[in-house]
Amino acid sequence: MTGAWLGLYRGGIAWESDLQFNAHPLCMVIGLIFLQGNALLVYRVFRNEAKRTTKVLHGLLHIFALVIALVGLVAVFDYHRKKGYADLYSLHSWCGILVFVLYFVQWLVGFSFFLFPGASFSLRSRYRPQHIFFGATIFLLSVGTALLGLKEALLFNLGGKYSAFEPEGVLANVLGLLLACFGGAVLYILTRADWKRPSQAEEQALSMDFKTLTEGDSPGSQ
Amino acid sequence: MTGAWLGLYRGGIAWESDLQFNAHPLCMVIGLIFLQGNALLVYRVFRNEAKRTTKVLHGLLHIFALVIALVGLVAVFDYHRKKGYADLYSLHSWCGILVFVLYFVQWLVGFSFFLFPGASFSLRSRYRPQHIFFGATIFLLSVGTALLGLKEALLFNLGGKYSAFEPEGVLANVLGLLLACFGGAVLYILTRADWKRPSQAEEQALSMDFKTLTEGDSPGSQ
Repeated sequence: MTGAWLGLYRGGIAWESDLQFNAHPLCMVIGLIFLQGNALLVYRVFRNEAKRTTKVLHGLLHIFALVIALVGLVAVFDYHRKKGYADLYSLHSWCGILVFVLYFVQWLVGFSFFLFPGASFSLRSRYRPQHIFFGATIFLLSVGTALLGLKEALLFNLGGKYSAFEPEGVLANVLGLLLACFGGAVLYILTRADWKRPSQAEEQALSMDFKTLTEGDSPGSQ
Repeated sequence: MTGAWLGLYRGGIAWESDLQFNAHPLCMVIGLIFLQGNALLVYRVFRNEAKRTTKVLHGLLHIFALVIALVGLVAVFDYHRKKGYADLYSLHSWCGILVFVLYFVQWLVGFSFFLFPGASFSLRSRYRPQHIFFGATIFLLSVGTALLGLKEALLFNLGGKYSAFEPEGVLANVLGLLLACFGGAVLYILTRADWKRPSQAEEQALSMDFKTLTEGDSPGSQ
């Protein structure tokens, strides 16, 4: 739908022209909303698959999201530079930079705790709830930032016509509501206790071993 | 800070003049962000107080929030009517109406399940996670809607000066980030397992009785 909006009302997408700007909303929505949102759900959708497989899929989706978002960022900075526009003055851009920095830090910390070199079971299980919370928060902030950007694009281009219910404005408003609904749906799936990945017998045994050695804590408290 | 922004850069607040518009952002932020956010945290902050007291406080805060938000809504519709501006064309207004309707429905359903006449223990415990999820979602959507409104107010009034880092723009951007951080902080407090209200002995006994009779389920699964 973002593509349809850009194609129908903004002349489509190209890198070497004024249409370079349009690569920004498309890449950000594909990367930081669609792919990031789906990456968050991997442990729910594939909760009965092997943990290693789901972990790799989670990491891969986040790599794609990061790379595509980076292309979107380059597009807008490059466009601003060519046009001589100021950078980073708006609330949209401030939220966007915050999202991108948090996303990158979350990626690095998540990678070093869960993939390579990997922390101890006890450290991982203490970090896991933080990783999930910050993941969800960064995703929701991405959705909020997209709505701010959409609104900015409408007010800059439509101006007074926005209040006359121009088709572009209505389409973009519906797109905004759908992005918010997608955010709500991901949050819902993520927070249902029944849809959480059950701890597998062998993982539980190992983590109990570790806990008994390190803390003497019961696994139910995590 | 919303008050400071309106006082310093928008001429303050009055009902019978052009300043009527300014009652809108102030009331919405006090009602649907500050009071609603704090109402969500009542069961966490007072998790060791009597359940009836916390329940009444939760309900009261939500009543105040609803009434103040209603004043804010009347302010903007009345202002638009006097000025002859179009209503409900922007993404901000669409999100705002969605928030307000959902908030009102959540209030009615919550009231009838938990206060008067009150549903059975089994029904309540099945509805509770939905009530919490929708409560958090409506609150986060309120924050998002506030950011959209703030952005709209800046683009309408500052125009090109926004990109020249006008003090008003910077103050409003910081306000936007603080609203987002407040949303994140409430979500964090709300989702920590350790900060949840422990089920009291007598409530647990009653609810176990009910469950054994109705479902034969264990209380840990809720």
